[in-house]
Amino acid sequence: MTLQETQSFRTWPDPSVVEDLSKVRARNPLVHCVTNLVVTNFTANVLLAVGASPAMVVAIEEVEQFAPVADAVLVNVGTVTSFDAKAMLGAAAAADQAGTPWVLDPVAVGALAFRTGIVEELLEHHPTIIRGNASEILALAGEASGSKGADSTADSSEAIDGARHLARRTGAVVAVTGVVDFVTDGEDVIGIPGSHELLTKVTGSGCALGAVLAAFLGIEDSALRAAVSGSAVFAIAGERAALDSRGPGSLAVALIDNLYLVGGKGDNTQARAL
Amino acid sequence: MTLQETQSFRTWPDPSVVEDLSKVRARNPLVHCVTNLVVTNFTANVLLAVGASPAMVVAIEEVEQFAPVADAVLVNVGTVTSFDAKAMLGAAAAADQAGTPWVLDPVAVGALAFRTGIVEELLEHHPTIIRGNASEILALAGEASGSKGADSTADSSEAIDGARHLARRTGAVVAVTGVVDFVTDGEDVIGIPGSHELLTKVTGSGCALGAVLAAFLGIEDSALRAAVSGSAVFAIAGERAALDSRGPGSLAVALIDNLYLVGGKGDNTQARAL
Amino acid sequence: MTLQETQSFRTWPDPSVVEDLSKVRARNPLVHCVTNLVVTNFTANVLLAVGASPAMVVAIEEVEQFAPVADAVLVNVGTVTSFDAKAMLGAAAAADQAGTPWVLDPVAVGALAFRTGIVEELLEHHPTIIRGNASEILALAGEASGSKGADSTADSSEAIDGARHLARRTGAVVAVTGVVDFVTDGEDVIGIPGSHELLTKVTGSGCALGAVLAAFLGIEDSALRAAVSGSAVFAIAGERAALDSRGPGSLAVALIDNLYLVGGKGDNTQARAL
Repeated sequence: MTLQETQSFRTWPDPSVVEDLSKVRARNPLVHCVTNLVVTNFTANVLLAVGASPAMVVAIEEVEQFAPVADAVLVNVGTVTSFDAKAMLGAAAAADQAGTPWVLDPVAVGALAFRTGIVEELLEHHPTIIRGNASEILALAGEASGSKGADSTADSSEAIDGARHLARRTGAVVAVTGVVDFVTDGEDVIGIPGSHELLTKVTGSGCALGAVLAAFLGIEDSALRAAVSGSAVFAIAGERAALDSRGPGSLAVALIDNLYLVGGKGDNTQARAL
Repeated sequence: MTLQETQSFRTWPDPSVVEDLSKVRARNPLVHCVTNLVVTNFTANVLLAVGASPAMVVAIEEVEQFAPVADAVLVNVGTVTSFDAKAMLGAAAAADQAGTPWVLDPVAVGALAFRTGIVEELLEHHPTIIRGNASEILALAGEASGSKGADSTADSSEAIDGARHLARRTGAVVAVTGVVDFVTDGEDVIGIPGSHELLTKVTGSGCALGAVLAAFLGIEDSALRAAVSGSAVFAIAGERAALDSRGPGSLAVALIDNLYLVGGKGDNTQARAL
Repeated sequence: MTLQETQSFRTWPDPSVVEDLSKVRARNPLVHCVTNLVVTNFTANVLLAVGASPAMVVAIEEVEQFAPVADAVLVNVGTVTSFDAKAMLGAAAAADQAGTPWVLDPVAVGALAFRTGIVEELLEHHPTIIRGNASEILALAGEASGSKGADSTADSSEAIDGARHLARRTGAVVAVTGVVDFVTDGEDVIGIPGSHELLTKVTGSGCALGAVLAAFLGIEDSALRAAVSGSAVFAIAGERAALDSRGPGSLAVALIDNLYLVGGKGDNTQARAL
């Protein structure tokens, strides 16, 4: 199967994307994040900007109470320690049992044995979406790849087959992040273009996308649709932000501004198109 | 008692506010923060901008040595774990014993049992100021409310009576943050207008305000006056920042800039008024 | 020995600085950071902007696997706990054994007994560069000074003799950060001017410099040259950023932008000079 055969592009403003974004803003889904210490602030600001309500609840004593009342959960192993791992597994298990949809972000899986074991345990709790870069998805799919710390050494399109296999094996929708994002449920593969290379210079942009996917899972039952809508909103905001920016510092700021502005009253692009 | 009967508005540039801000800048109070992992960077930058000297000292082995030499302490339970709780209780006890004034920020108290228990323990060490949103203050006051993660579901004005009860019971000055901030020592209730709704889209803006109140406690013996001055400086900086901003990303940046600029040489508003 | 006798100034665009920066951008050195929780995000963004590949790997179970494959390691004790200390010591020992160069940032050493003990243990693992402010370097050199939390109470030039002694005793290159940065291997002392006072209002600017020195260590065998080049790049980016900024909020953003832009295609200053 070639790339051309499988992908259908959903760009902004696709009506389903606009509808889902409106739902996020109307319902403010509560997103319970157990994420890494590099990106907590950025992730929370991205979630607020898109219209969700972030809650970074990380105590082992609290995650089991909180995950069931949240609209969605995000687990990101970027800086996982043995202490954090207990909270992540508790949150994932509680979400699974309560029927709260949850996103797994397996940062640098495959590159380090300790976190690879934790990710394998997390997979037993049935993530609704798995989001990663090409190296991470290939590692989870059992296909050897390389990674450089948290950075992928493969192109997202190289991971499409691996993503489909992983989706079939786990039952999760798999989102591969790259220059073009790909989302698959094991059958359909949907490509979302529009991101910008400079975003790879903003730490946690992929992690923040994982949180946005959780926000959209909080308002949409179809994980495939939630992943596509969340990715499309993030991509267009990223693309617009890159046009405004001198470098990665101003890009991070503009990304949050554009996530807040996209599809809103002042969004002429949308006004013209709909 | 109605809102109209109790509040007196102190807006910028009130002479006492200006005087206190000048003291912060002249003395650079050392503010020992044991705060949550979402807002550490933002809090430190806010404190530096306003003229204080932040110190995020969080080791159990260090808090008891440091709190007594700090000018003020901030304890914020936003992402408290059992590990953090020991440091928070150690810092609060050491501050209480040494006479160092300290601010308690009881993030999401009432919503989760574990942290509610920790906050109750912290209250035994006599916080000088308690800062929270309406839901948190109502929960502490024993009045049922709701909260959505860290976000309040009530308006600040609804928590005025609860704040007064809480202040009387604990001996702390209570600051309720919202569209209008209210500060009370159990008798007087002072309203500080001027914040901006967009600030609720910047994660940790309330937490950073708690740190600013600690900075003002570091230079002013009256906790009521410190809370009013700190809230007024933060509110005017927030209001000015919102005017400069396209969205919450640029607002966070502009808030820090305006906290640095407010009342300074380049501040024409103050120059005209004084 | 007077300041005038020892310092030679290396400003931008010195050919060796430009050459080293080009190497960082070509090789993207993998920098393993075990740093403090205030500055993780800022440090990662600074490293990405300068052209390095940051990896915040902090689990005790992972540091010994990761430090040997990284191009350089950074250990920063800013918010060290007993839990973190094990990871820091593990990373430092693994780096030392594997021959991975590493930077020690002894934040607030001397001011607090617990971290002072940890820093002494870390010194046994032979850091390649020690970076600190004047108070920290003087404390490590055994000369009494004061510090105010993480802020120095001494000028960087006052710590030159202490830095030389420390370098001779430990075998590390010592970098003293201040209005003028000084770098020494115990014999030569090189001054790098060009930073800006407003940078002291951006939390973690010194910590981020420590990470940049690690990035340059990842591509250059001479620790003295790496420290000088990294300091010079950071200083010129900081100086340019300050010219663009209204206050410390916009300065932090502009610093990252300028670290990304410096010496690049759009850098007319360099184009004219070379």
